[in-house]
Amino acid sequence: MAVDLLGGDHAPAVVVDGALHAFQDDPSLHLLLVGPHDAADAMVAAIDPAQRGRVTHGAAITQDQPDDGVRAAVRAVAHGEADAVVSAGNTAAIVVSAARALGRWPGVRRPPLAAVLPTVAGRLVLLDVGSAVDPDEHFLLMHARLGAAYAAVVHEVARPRVGLLTIGIERGKGDRLRRAAPPLFEAADLPAGARYVGLVEGNDVVTGAAADVVVTDGFTGNILLKGLETAYAQLGPPGAPLNDGPAGVPRAALLLGVGGTVVVCHGAASSSDLAAGIALAANLHRRAAMVAMVDHVVNEEHSPHNEVSHDG
Amino acid sequence: MAVDLLGGDHAPAVVVDGALHAFQDDPSLHLLLVGPHDAADAMVAAIDPAQRGRVTHGAAITQDQPDDGVRAAVRAVAHGEADAVVSAGNTAAIVVSAARALGRWPGVRRPPLAAVLPTVAGRLVLLDVGSAVDPDEHFLLMHARLGAAYAAVVHEVARPRVGLLTIGIERGKGDRLRRAAPPLFEAADLPAGARYVGLVEGNDVVTGAAADVVVTDGFTGNILLKGLETAYAQLGPPGAPLNDGPAGVPRAALLLGVGGTVVVCHGAASSSDLAAGIALAANLHRRAAMVAMVDHVVNEEHSPHNEVSHDG
Repeated sequence: MAVDLLGGDHAPAVVVDGALHAFQDDPSLHLLLVGPHDAADAMVAAIDPAQRGRVTHGAAITQDQPDDGVRAAVRAVAHGEADAVVSAGNTAAIVVSAARALGRWPGVRRPPLAAVLPTVAGRLVLLDVGSAVDPDEHFLLMHARLGAAYAAVVHEVARPRVGLLTIGIERGKGDRLRRAAPPLFEAADLPAGARYVGLVEGNDVVTGAAADVVVTDGFTGNILLKGLETAYAQLGPPGAPLNDGPAGVPRAALLLGVGGTVVVCHGAASSSDLAAGIALAANLHRRAAMVAMVDHVVNEEHSPHNEVSHDG
Repeated sequence: MAVDLLGGDHAPAVVVDGALHAFQDDPSLHLLLVGPHDAADAMVAAIDPAQRGRVTHGAAITQDQPDDGVRAAVRAVAHGEADAVVSAGNTAAIVVSAARALGRWPGVRRPPLAAVLPTVAGRLVLLDVGSAVDPDEHFLLMHARLGAAYAAVVHEVARPRVGLLTIGIERGKGDRLRRAAPPLFEAADLPAGARYVGLVEGNDVVTGAAADVVVTDGFTGNILLKGLETAYAQLGPPGAPLNDGPAGVPRAALLLGVGGTVVVCHGAASSSDLAAGIALAANLHRRAAMVAMVDHVVNEEHSPHNEVSHDG
């Protein structure tokens, strides 16, 4: 697992702390630390000497070039030196370097970030939460395909219900993008047996009653995610406990549609958020989740509208 | 107070019920019922005969033309037959008919809807929550001016802090609209002593720590509002009690920048939401809040960029 020590507002201290927690919680986790020597050394010094073989110091990145850390961590996955990458760094830098170094799945132009939210009805996949901030309706449809695969593979939902987030369920409401997208969604053949269930609203992201996957642009999704996560942090999450360990649903997003496991934490992530993000990445890798998802999205592909990426 | 009996998903039953509650809670409230005869008759029948003088049946609207109810209720205010209007009807119909019949304040092109959210730090004004779904940056600046006046007049905030909602506080993040707006905000002379405090994120709408007024487009604002309101309904509102009566902060929005008091409830509003909306409208009218706001926004106007409305 490549960990970007310089990613985030409180790096490297918070990242080192989070990585230490994840490392101690998971005896089979190996970490590749990407970042300054002193931060990596501090982490190694805090570890039982008998366990130090599980930690490697990768590329030495200096504090004034934090985006280099993102790129080096992603390259480590591309070169087979790590199985996955976790970063709380600049979202655009992560998305762009992951798309370049790991390749995009066929038809994926801008890989979306998928977050998971607890709801009364169970887990809900919300995407995009910050990658494509000015998408068109074709981007949104690919988000729907990728989100459906996520819910099927990771949450084991048999026939995921996919909704399009808007501000009123009557046809014709919403902004230009949300007025353009529904015909495309209605005509689409979604993977993993997923069904498009129509327009959903902000309240549906809290209740989970209408959909398992909620599709939106990265601007709206990011704002809603940060609002709800903060509300849940203050008030407790909705619904029954999700049996997901003490941390509950991790506050970390998965980059979908790239050739590797890339987990992105908020810039303001705490050390426990970082630890949960590392545990999420390890779990997804061990379950071969990305392989199963690409199988749904690419191999079940019937739509003639999808383009093929040439730089994957 | 003109009440649109046909507005909302569960009209007229829920509206009649909410109006009854508001009427019984406020002995000086007079209601002008706009809607079908049978619904108005049902409401009158439920009232103590000694109090029936406080209820008038206005325009008789039939169930198949609900937007006619919105227009008739707004016209009643324009014609001086009512002091304010409350509707849970179609937002676009309310905004357009209010702008036409009551006029817009100088410089207001699309009147925004302002909602109030409870936060740990007190009340927060969020606007727009559903009127202008594809605004440009000049609309957003007017939203900021109107929201500042709201916070100053209604929440009695001395120098309201105004933030622009986006997805990262570094300059250059956000979508096209949020990249275009900051220079305009920084150069603006806001009313009521308000200060532009810069970019804020979804979490700031929950904590209230960064701003008293949060400005966004009507699409994002509506989705965030419905998400947070639903979370708070399930989990309890954040922060200390706001001493706002048993209902807390009303789940109703005020239309700003028009020549009258227009309160809009969600289409899915409950009877207690409707009652809270009616009480809010009555309170704002008695405090002459719109007059005080127009005084801040129009009479303190120094900006040469504002246009004058010609159909007000």
